[in-house]
Formats: sequence, structure tokens, C-alpha cells
Amino acid sequence: MAVHSEMTSLLTRLTSLLDDRVSTNANTREQHGRDEGFRPSQPPDVVVFPLSTEEVSAVAKVCADMAVPMIPYGVGTSLEGQVMAPNGGVCMDMSRMNEVLQVNPRDLDCVVQAGVTRRQLNTYLRDQGMFFPVDPGADATMGGMASTRASGTNAVRYGTMRENVLGLTVVLADGRVVTTGGRARKSSAGYDLTHLFVGSEGTLGIITELTVRLFGRLEAISAAVCSFSDLSAAVDAVIETIQLGIPVARIELLDEVQMDAVNRYSGLSYAVSPTLFLEFHGTRSAVAEQAELVGDIVNQHGGSNFQWARDEVDRNALWRARHDAAYACKALRVGCEIWPTDVCVPISQLAECIRQTRLDIVQSGLVAPIVGHVGDGNFHVVIVLDTNDPDEIRRANEFNERLIARALAVGGTSTGEHGIGLGKRKHLLREHGNAVELMAGIKQVLDPQNLMNPGKIFMRP
Amino acid sequence: MAVHSEMTSLLTRLTSLLDDRVSTNANTREQHGRDEGFRPSQPPDVVVFPLSTEEVSAVAKVCADMAVPMIPYGVGTSLEGQVMAPNGGVCMDMSRMNEVLQVNPRDLDCVVQAGVTRRQLNTYLRDQGMFFPVDPGADATMGGMASTRASGTNAVRYGTMRENVLGLTVVLADGRVVTTGGRARKSSAGYDLTHLFVGSEGTLGIITELTVRLFGRLEAISAAVCSFSDLSAAVDAVIETIQLGIPVARIELLDEVQMDAVNRYSGLSYAVSPTLFLEFHGTRSAVAEQAELVGDIVNQHGGSNFQWARDEVDRNALWRARHDAAYACKALRVGCEIWPTDVCVPISQLAECIRQTRLDIVQSGLVAPIVGHVGDGNFHVVIVLDTNDPDEIRRANEFNERLIARALAVGGTSTGEHGIGLGKRKHLLREHGNAVELMAGIKQVLDPQNLMNPGKIFMRP
Repeated sequence: MAVHSEMTSLLTRLTSLLDDRVSTNANTREQHGRDEGFRPSQPPDVVVFPLSTEEVSAVAKVCADMAVPMIPYGVGTSLEGQVMAPNGGVCMDMSRMNEVLQVNPRDLDCVVQAGVTRRQLNTYLRDQGMFFPVDPGADATMGGMASTRASGTNAVRYGTMRENVLGLTVVLADGRVVTTGGRARKSSAGYDLTHLFVGSEGTLGIITELTVRLFGRLEAISAAVCSFSDLSAAVDAVIETIQLGIPVARIELLDEVQMDAVNRYSGLSYAVSPTLFLEFHGTRSAVAEQAELVGDIVNQHGGSNFQWARDEVDRNALWRARHDAAYACKALRVGCEIWPTDVCVPISQLAECIRQTRLDIVQSGLVAPIVGHVGDGNFHVVIVLDTNDPDEIRRANEFNERLIARALAVGGTSTGEHGIGLGKRKHLLREHGNAVELMAGIKQVLDPQNLMNPGKIFMRP
Repeated sequence: MAVHSEMTSLLTRLTSLLDDRVSTNANTREQHGRDEGFRPSQPPDVVVFPLSTEEVSAVAKVCADMAVPMIPYGVGTSLEGQVMAPNGGVCMDMSRMNEVLQVNPRDLDCVVQAGVTRRQLNTYLRDQGMFFPVDPGADATMGGMASTRASGTNAVRYGTMRENVLGLTVVLADGRVVTTGGRARKSSAGYDLTHLFVGSEGTLGIITELTVRLFGRLEAISAAVCSFSDLSAAVDAVIETIQLGIPVARIELLDEVQMDAVNRYSGLSYAVSPTLFLEFHGTRSAVAEQAELVGDIVNQHGGSNFQWARDEVDRNALWRARHDAAYACKALRVGCEIWPTDVCVPISQLAECIRQTRLDIVQSGLVAPIVGHVGDGNFHVVIVLDTNDPDEIRRANEFNERLIARALAVGGTSTGEHGIGLGKRKHLLREHGNAVELMAGIKQVLDPQNLMNPGKIFMRP
């Protein structure tokens, strides 16, 4: 976008399509060039606000014609730089495509535009006795969550976006609109393009509509907290719970550093030791039985008795503390940024992997609480980073390398739910080797000009 | 393979790799050229029996070099001609790659070679208190089940191959070996190649190893049968059960024609009316509660009281009757073949779709019981076909067209679990429109010579 006349021509064409929903305002661009990671903004040249699949398609055709990059944007809650525009281009802000198009209570599914956020959807569904389970913490858009294959606290029971997206409408790099999947609960009809687009981080096309699974609201929900003197014991309790097939809805691990941060930030007084936050869903008697079974397991592994949160107010307070973990981390050091990184390992490796990670954090002289979706073997290290200290940045980078190397060495993955973005491209190569060539080949077929969110996932610009 | 000298050269090269595990025996070829559908055999030129990923890769390199088609073969239980060799070529019989390579009880996963059958795996796992849930009826190989995205009776609770395959080793058309996914329960690292290969019916590569999820054996299992005077009432009971989130493990519908066939074939005396076969898994009290809740729902919809099968012998007898449904159909007309076809629709459309289908069967003068994995909206019509009667074949084909058109019209799919193969290629186009171009583009990247199971899924030869 160096040439001025090209920019003028692009803006003319975009404005003819979208009228005043085209912005080159510096603040708008700056804001759309960064996410919730610690990286400084890399702004796009233009931000557009389409209202329909047709408009996204029309914009894509203009961009394809002029070889301009396209970067889809939800609400900017990604963590690995997925929304940044290292090559400039047109940011497609999907937040105004926020209509719930169809809800089918008998089928427990719905169709939404990509800009609907998960909280908006759940508010919409509340009166109909249903909910959408995937909960990554942030109030992200459904399109963004699908793009990064997001998950969160209750994936252990309800699955991630991978399991909950039934079908998509996608605008390809040349403006073609394709629909994938459908409303049938299962299908053996051809290649699974839905799963190909889920997790592709906008590099294969722009998701404009999603059909997703819903769940009926449960009769009873109870949440509880229990602490352990020892991290391995906490993980062993989780492993036993899962092996027994107890359908626990949430099972989160916070290490002692994270618990200290949570106590300080939220004015609470939990024990400063490895702690599990749990939630049980079901009928009243099923919840009671699950709680009793898990309580026994926890006791056998030396855990404390449950502190219960049975009503909604108490439960919300408990989960607010958990969801505020990142802010609690940030509050540990004034003026610092947070760099949340995540890996996922086979659960049998989790305790040892976290133990080594804790040791590594201490030896690296970093402040970095650990919090994990422990039922899935997924854990986050939230590095609280002084971005003005080059040596600390170096140590943080080196620590992140070792964290991922440890995860890969035991059969894990370089990211459980944050995605590759800009931050983990070389780790993807380490993890998947020659399979990355296949991914690049598929990208080449769908986006021969490399205009769809270029620079993400793959090492080439 | 018309040229004799080429065939000689191919056999020389294959024999140098696999010694006597190369066959051109007419019976062997004939047997490998057909599946459990009604189509006459289209034999490959050669059948090979590799023992390792390395051998599959070596054979693929020879085939790629000589531009010879490759057709992967498990035990031949596909239904839409997936294993047939319309262009000749080399059939890769994977049945001798039948080792369970790794079982990880703490992680509830295992790694198997593609030729391991599901019963073999479950026998292997029995003493370790775990099981692999996907159960398509036939004792298919794990590689074959992944290739057709198989599911079956308990997908409503445990998912299909789509949900249960964590990672794959695949030999590509040029002999390259790639691994996809991994042992982590979730990952956001790059494109989801695992789901791309699952359901690709051997057209993108040959699956040689699989990492799959396992489940802990449940404390209690109970199975029950109940009948309804009316099909809609049965389906409504199922919808309510699922809406309430009752985690029923199996919920199968057999229509009155199927029940009559089952009674005759298995010497039973169930009511000849729409009937649900159910199974509950969990702790003793959870199973009791589920049974009570579903029992109430069934009664509210005018269903009969449950006939219980609580011990393993009774349960096996009950499910044997269900699994023998196809044979029961075949026994309805001596000397006929069976043509099982399947569609899947949003469950809200299921009762009406089955009602219209039953009417259509009667009007078409066909014998065709209906049996469905009703919790998923998936149902099978088993056409009992006199393959010597061209007019009956014509009527069956026309019926199948209308069946699929009805499913697509209500947002369903042309196949829930049997796949496309040779039989449903034009329906795939109808269902997915221009997305099929994308599928073909992906195939072109991975298999530029069109050697991997050519003629399947896509209309081109």
C-alpha cells in the first residue's frame, strides 16, 4: 500500500461498496492492529465494517483484484497477534455482523453471524433454556473463537470449537462464498471443510456465519474449590476423576503463585497452594453424586474439603476470580504487560511438566503464575513482563522456547487454545514437521495470492 | 494396466519389496474388489499385504512412479463401493497391520495400526477397564472406520470417528509419510489435517496408524426396549430426552417393518410397531436415574413400559437383534441382495422424514425396513433388492434419489455414516455445491496424479 494512488483507488472502491463504513482514522487503525497479547500494534491501512456475507465477498473481490491483504477482526481478544497487520491491508471488522439468525430448540443448534459474541449469544438463549458452552474467558466473537479453535474452562465436558461448530459460511480470497457442514449432527459426505476452516486463523478465508451446537440448561449446577499441598496430588485427583468417567463440567488448576495473585486482586482468602476449581452440571441427584465421588477422590489424594458455591451469585464470584486470573497477574507488577502462553500435554505428563515449568520460571527470574484447564492437560503460563527490560524479554522468550520444547517432548502441542498467529510459527514447524508443507499447499490452493491474513501460521511473510 | 510388460515390471518391483505378500490370484482380487454393498466386484490388478508404514510408503513410491492407482482395503465392510477398483491398480490390504502399538490408561488413549479391528481392540482393552466406543455394527478396521468417518449406535453419547481420532500417520500418494494431530486432547496448532483425512475415503492418502480416545468402563450398563403406536411419538420422546441433557448411550429406532423382520430372523416376539432400543451407562444410581427420567418421558408420549436387559447376556441378545437387522432384512426375500442407504437430518425433521420415506417405500413397491440412530437424526433404509429385476433396480434408484432430496431439503446430509464412495458422488455435488471444487482442489494438491482411490467421492474417473 505504498503507492498513494493505489490507496486512493482502494478507498474509492471500498466506499462505493460500504459508504461510511470504511475508516482510515489513525486511532481506529491502531486499535485494530493489536490484540490482548503484549505486542505493539501493527495497524492495517483501512478498517471496514461489513454487514453481510455479500459485503464481505464484495470487499474480498476488490482486495483480490488489487492484491491487498485482508485481516478478519472480531473484538481483538486473540493472544498470538492473529489480528495484527504486518503487511498492512484491509481489516474486516466483523463486529457489526452480530445477528442471531436462527435458533432451533428441538435440534439444539443455532445459526449466528460471525460477530455475535459468546455472552451476547448466551443472553439471547437464556429464556429458551439453552446455552452455548465454549467459554475462553474473553467475550470473544463466535467467528474469532472458531478461527483460533478456542476452548476454555468447560471443554473437558462440552468440547472446544472443534466439537461445537457444525457448519460455516466462508468468504474465500477471491470473494467466492462457500458453505460447509450443515445442521445434521453427523455426516460422511466428502471432506471435512468445516474442521479445516476452524483453527485456520483467517488464513484460508473469512468466516461470516456459523451453525453451532447448543445444550439444554441443566437443572442443577454446583461449583467448589479445594486445595492441595502438592501439585501432583491435585493432578492425580483429576486423572482419577476422568478415568472414572465422572462428567465434571469444569476442572481448573491454579498454582500457588496464581492463588496468591487472585487473593490479592479479588480480596479473597483462599489457601495459597495448588487449588482446583470445579463445577458439576446435571440433575440435582446427579450433581450430588458427582460431588460426592469427586470429594472422595480429592480426600484420598490429600486435598481439602470442598468450599461450595451453590447459588448463582456465589458461583459467579468464584468463576469471576478464576476469569480475572490474567488481570490478577497483571496487578502483580505495576506497569507491566502480560504475555499469556499455553501448551497442552497428555494428562499423565501434566504434573511433571508443570513442576519443571515452575522450576524454570523461578530459575529464569520471571513472575509467571500458572493456571490450567487441567482436565484437558492444557495449561497457561502468564508471564508478567516489563516490556522496557530487554533482558527480561530475552529471558521470557527463552523460557517460552523451553516450555514448548518440554510439551512437544512428551507428545503435547505448542498451543492448546491460543493458536499460532505470529508468535508460534517456528514451533508449528517443530511440532508438525513436513505436515506444515501440506498445510501450506492447501493455503496455496485456496489463497494463491497469499492475501488472507498473510504472515500468520506460516513463516513466509 | 493394459500393457503386459508394465504389469510384469510392477509385480517385479512389488515382489522385491514385499516378497510373497503380493497376489494376483483371481479369487483374492475378486474378493478385494467388492464390499458389503450390492455392487458386483471391480477387482484390482494386484493385492499387496504390507506390514508397516514403511512398506506402504515404499509401495506408494512404486505406484506413483508407474502412475498406478492405489486402493486401501481394511476388511471390505464399506457400503458405497469405497474399496472397489474401477480403474484397476494396487489394493493395499491393511489387515496384517493389526498391532495395538501403545495403550495409555492414564491418558485414555491408544495408538493402533490401521488394520486393527474394533472388536480386536476392545478385546485387547477389556482387562484394562477401558473401551473404544465407536460401533458401526460391522467388525471394521480402525483405518477403514476413520476413512469413512464411521459412527453407529452409541455416537449420540461418545461421538463418531470424527470426535474420537486424535492423530494419524498417513502415507501420501508420493510415498511421503506425515503425522497429524497428536496425543494432546486439544490443540490450536495449525490446520486440522486429522479431520481432513478422517472421512476422505482413501482419496488423499492411506492411513497406517491412528491415535484414538478411549473411555473407562462404566460401573453399570442397562439396556431396554419400548414400543410406540406411532413413529412421531417415539421421535418426540427422543427429542425430549436429548433436550434434557440425559446422557443416554444408545437410542435406536426400528420401524414396524424392521421389527417384524427382527422377530422372524431372531425368533423374538417384540411388538410389531415403532420401537426404541436404549442403553444407559454410568454409576448404578446414575443409570437408575436416567432410566427413570427416560421412562417417564416415554410414558408421556404413549410408549410401552421398558423391557429390561440388565445383565450382559441379555444385553448382548438385545443388541445382537439390533445388529442383525441387516441380515434380518436379507432374510425377508430369499436370493436378494441388500442395499443399505443412509441419510441424516436435523432431529426435528426426523419423524416427518421417516413418515414420508415409509410412504414412498410402499408406493415404490419396495421391501425396505427402516432403522435409525435416532439420537443423531441418522436413519438407514435397507432396500432388499432383487438384482435380477431391472425394473426393481430402477425403482430402488429413484427411491434413493427422492430419499436424499428429502433429507437435503430439510437441512440434512446425503449420508450420515456410509460415505460417498461410488454411490453418492452426484449427491455430494447437490449437497455441497461449489465447496466440492475446494475438495477437488485439495485432492489435486495432495494427489496430483489422481492415484489415491480414484473414482471415489468425485465424479471424475
